[in-house]
Formats: sequence, structure tokens, C-alpha cells
Amino acid sequence: MDILVIGSVAFDSVETPFGRVDDVLGGSATYFSASASFFTGVQLVAVVGEDFPEEPRQFLSSRGVDLAGLQTCSGQTFRWKGRYGYDLSEAQTLETHLNVFETFHPQLPESYRQAKYVFLANIDPELQLEVLQQVERPQLIACDTMNFWIDGKRDALVRTLGHVDILVINEAEVRQLADEANLVKASRAVLSMGPKTLVVKRGEYGVLVFTEHSIFSAPAYPLEEVFDPTGAGDTFAGGFMGYLAATNNLTDETIRKATIFGSVMASFTVEDFSLNRLRKLKWEDVEERFRLFQALTAFEGL
Amino acid sequence: MDILVIGSVAFDSVETPFGRVDDVLGGSATYFSASASFFTGVQLVAVVGEDFPEEPRQFLSSRGVDLAGLQTCSGQTFRWKGRYGYDLSEAQTLETHLNVFETFHPQLPESYRQAKYVFLANIDPELQLEVLQQVERPQLIACDTMNFWIDGKRDALVRTLGHVDILVINEAEVRQLADEANLVKASRAVLSMGPKTLVVKRGEYGVLVFTEHSIFSAPAYPLEEVFDPTGAGDTFAGGFMGYLAATNNLTDETIRKATIFGSVMASFTVEDFSLNRLRKLKWEDVEERFRLFQALTAFEGL
Repeated sequence: MDILVIGSVAFDSVETPFGRVDDVLGGSATYFSASASFFTGVQLVAVVGEDFPEEPRQFLSSRGVDLAGLQTCSGQTFRWKGRYGYDLSEAQTLETHLNVFETFHPQLPESYRQAKYVFLANIDPELQLEVLQQVERPQLIACDTMNFWIDGKRDALVRTLGHVDILVINEAEVRQLADEANLVKASRAVLSMGPKTLVVKRGEYGVLVFTEHSIFSAPAYPLEEVFDPTGAGDTFAGGFMGYLAATNNLTDETIRKATIFGSVMASFTVEDFSLNRLRKLKWEDVEERFRLFQALTAFEGL
Repeated sequence: MDILVIGSVAFDSVETPFGRVDDVLGGSATYFSASASFFTGVQLVAVVGEDFPEEPRQFLSSRGVDLAGLQTCSGQTFRWKGRYGYDLSEAQTLETHLNVFETFHPQLPESYRQAKYVFLANIDPELQLEVLQQVERPQLIACDTMNFWIDGKRDALVRTLGHVDILVINEAEVRQLADEANLVKASRAVLSMGPKTLVVKRGEYGVLVFTEHSIFSAPAYPLEEVFDPTGAGDTFAGGFMGYLAATNNLTDETIRKATIFGSVMASFTVEDFSLNRLRKLKWEDVEERFRLFQALTAFEGL
């Protein structure tokens, strides 16, 4: 199954203790698509400005990403500028220029409206709903969000969550959304808002997946070189959703394996700036690291 | 095999968002012994004051802990007072009264000197060495330490580490000891100081175990009720060392299983103040939670 993703395509300027880059390819939909493309076809919905060049389009197309839904509007592409300190756990946003994103109201191409798997990356929950209304009979809807929307557009977000099967957010956002410090209790509260599965991203500490009857814990891979965490969460979501869509089943087993594939993909993204590592990645690398995750977590039962 | 442990036996006063207790049983050697006693016999080395009552002695004895090395000196027992906020990840120390611990120079009873497994809990590295010199032919030495000694007694600590097989410390301490922000690099540096195995405690995020050729990641159990994290690290060490001593082998497999047993024991301790949960714990509870750890982490391989 292909996956429809709505999110941002952007230029990022990023400083980490290991270097800096200016106006490199970024954006949630970009990381998601490149990652998911290792597993399945992707239909991308986003907007760029007239300054957006040909090369990244070619890269994404070459990865099997359908760009029929990538609108080009007059104006500049969305730009984000951020900085990470030594712990790399949280970006400090220095500048955000929404540019063409500010007035974006996605119109899905006809060919996208039968999408069965949908990922709503972290954008205004009202836009997330607008997109959902244009998809005829989605089979699985997943979404991301952030503190900004939890604070500022809670009602719209809660409406969106009513339609969502899988919510993929970070630990602090789970606590904020549920207004509860204990993560297990907070997760139960979030599950009562609609999603049947909650994927809690914990950065270098990995991922916890909550369903009604089960909790799954996946580590992040302990890396000697973490260059730039930008896009790790969206890359995770791409691998996670990509594997689910490729297998087209939603058993607990599949969700667990999808979580590891997501973690594998994210572990590559952070090894370089922008999508540089994903661009060079081969399927053999993915399989090899999946096996490293097995070795990392295996222990003998009772 | 029995384990010899040197550490503190103390009275703790603890405030958490869920309650407070005053002058309850605590101390690194106490938590360690109670936990390890589920797996093997323990020889305890510590000092208490004349104010130390009979009840905790009876409790420890009833758990198979040998108290021949528990000295009673004139003066007061070691007291610690601390407070935790909502995130429960770090205690704020309000008061520390070393009392009889201040002038403590342990003399091992004759019956302790053949100990094969030794755990040096978090005390002055010079005292750790003093104890080691009294053990004739230890087979496995593990130790804990803290930022205070890494800062203030680095040379003595490095000397101790030269004798140590397994170092069990928290994440921030690994980084501080190696003066390196990346945890994988920092762990390699610490392994080069002597220990063949480094167990990195990450609180609610679990444990990473580094050896020369392998990394093992174990989660902490996601709990709905975390009451008081005091003693979690020592309880972990008790379960970890207890299982190693009971099996008396040091393969990678055994170390991994020991890590899970340590995590199981720690997950109980935090469910109540002091050693209250450990006092009520049954072996069936331990096995049941071990199986929950299996369920928590299991996924299908490639």
C-alpha cells in the first residue's frame, strides 16, 4: 500500500557542536517520504516556493515518491533555523519563516483520494482535518503534533485525534496533552482520546508503544557519532508507517517490528546533516542495523 | 556464591510528590542486600550507631544476610534527607549526616575474607580499596561511585577502578568520568580504565551494558505508580550481582539476564517508600515481572 503524507518541505539551517549547514533540504514530509520510500510508495502533499530547485524533486522521485501533490506557489519555501547543544536532545529554534506554508490549503490530486494509509505530519491540526476530509476511505491514519498545537489549538487537535488510529509524539507532548506527569497514566489518557496506538518518542532513549493491552519498549541505537538529530522523529515515522503499509496488517507483532524499522531509519538520519545519510542508504544497511537492534535487546527468557 | 557488600546502612527522610517519610530504613548496602538476598547469600559490611534498632537486623537476617560485618559504634547512624520533584529523576539532597560513617574503617570478619563476589557500593574510593585489600582472592569485583568522588577523589577512584571488573554508575557519571558527552565514546573510555563491563543506569530509561564487544539495552519497567526512587540503583545492583553470583558464570548471556533481574528488582523498590515493597516481595512476583520484561521487549527478527 502507498502512504499519503502531508507535512512540510523546507530549507533548514542547523548548528550543532559538530558543524553547521545553511538552507539544506529538510521538512517533516521530506524526511518521512525518504524514509518510508524504503518500504513502499509515498504520495507527498506539501507546498514549496518558486525558489525550490529541481534536484530534491529528482531525488524524491527517484525514491518512488509521487510529487503530484507538491504544489509550487509564488513566494519562498518554508525555512527553519535551529541550534543544538552538546546533549542534542532539544533544538533551540532561532528562526521560523512559514512563507508559502502560511496560506497553504492542500487540495489533494484525484489520484491521492483513495489513499489507504495516511500520515499527518506535525502541522496545524485544522490542516490535518482538511486533508482527512479529502481522503475517501482511509484504512489507517497516523499523526504527529507538537507542544505549539497542544497549547494553542487544543480543540482542533482533539477533533483530529478522534479520527486518528496511531499518534506518534514525544514524551513531553504526551505529558502535556494528558496534563499528567506519570507517562503510563498519561498514555492511557491519550489513548482515551481516540488513537488505538500511541507511539512515544524519547529521543536517544528510544520509543515506547502503548496499545490498550500491551506496552512495547524499543531502544534507540547507541551511536558513537550523532551529528544532527533534525528529522529523526519524522524519519522514525516514515520507517514505522512504511513497514506497516508494506505488510498491510496491524497485529501487535507487526507494530513492534515497524517500531524497530522506524528506529533503524532514525538511527541513520542523525549520522549526518539533512537527508545526506538517507540519500546514501542501501536496503542492506537497513537489514544490517535491524539485526544490530536484535543483538542489542536479546536476552534469554526464564 | 555469597556476595560481600560494603556500603551504607542509614536512616532516610524522603519527600516525594506522593508523601513523606522520616527516619526510615535506607542505605546502599541495605537495599543491595535485601535485593541480592532473593538470589544468594550476602555478607554485609557497614557501620551503624547505637540508635540502630533490632527490627531491621532481624529483617535482614531473615533474608539470609550475614550481619557479622555490621559494626555498631557509639554515636548516631548515618542519616540522609532528600526531596524529589514530579519528574522523580533526581533527588535534591537536603541534609547528609555521616555520623558514625565519618570515621569508619571496615575490618572484615575472618569469615568474610574468602568472599568470591564483592560489591563496593557508593562510598569513598579509599574505603573501597581498604576493603578489597582484606579479601583474599575475589573472583568478581563490582563497584558503584558518584559525582562527588569523581570530582573530589579522582586518583583514588582510578586506583580502585584498576581492580574492578564491573562498574555500575549512572549516565551523567559516565560522561563526567570520561569527560566526553557522547555516551558510547565515554563508555569506551571508562572501559579502558579497568572494568571489563560497564553498566550505565539511566533511571526510568533503563540500563545500557557495555562490554568490549557488545552493547545490551534493557528498559526500565513503565510503572503507573512510582512512589520513591530512593535505592533503585542499589536494588538494581543487588539483583544484578545476586543473579551473577547465583549462576557463578560471566558469559554475555548471564550478564544480560542479570541486568533484567536487576531491573525487575529496582522496579519493585520504587513502588513504595524505604524497603517496604522488598519486604513483601515473593519470588513468584520476581518471576512474573521478569516475564513482563520479556513481553515488553520482544519482537520478531528478520
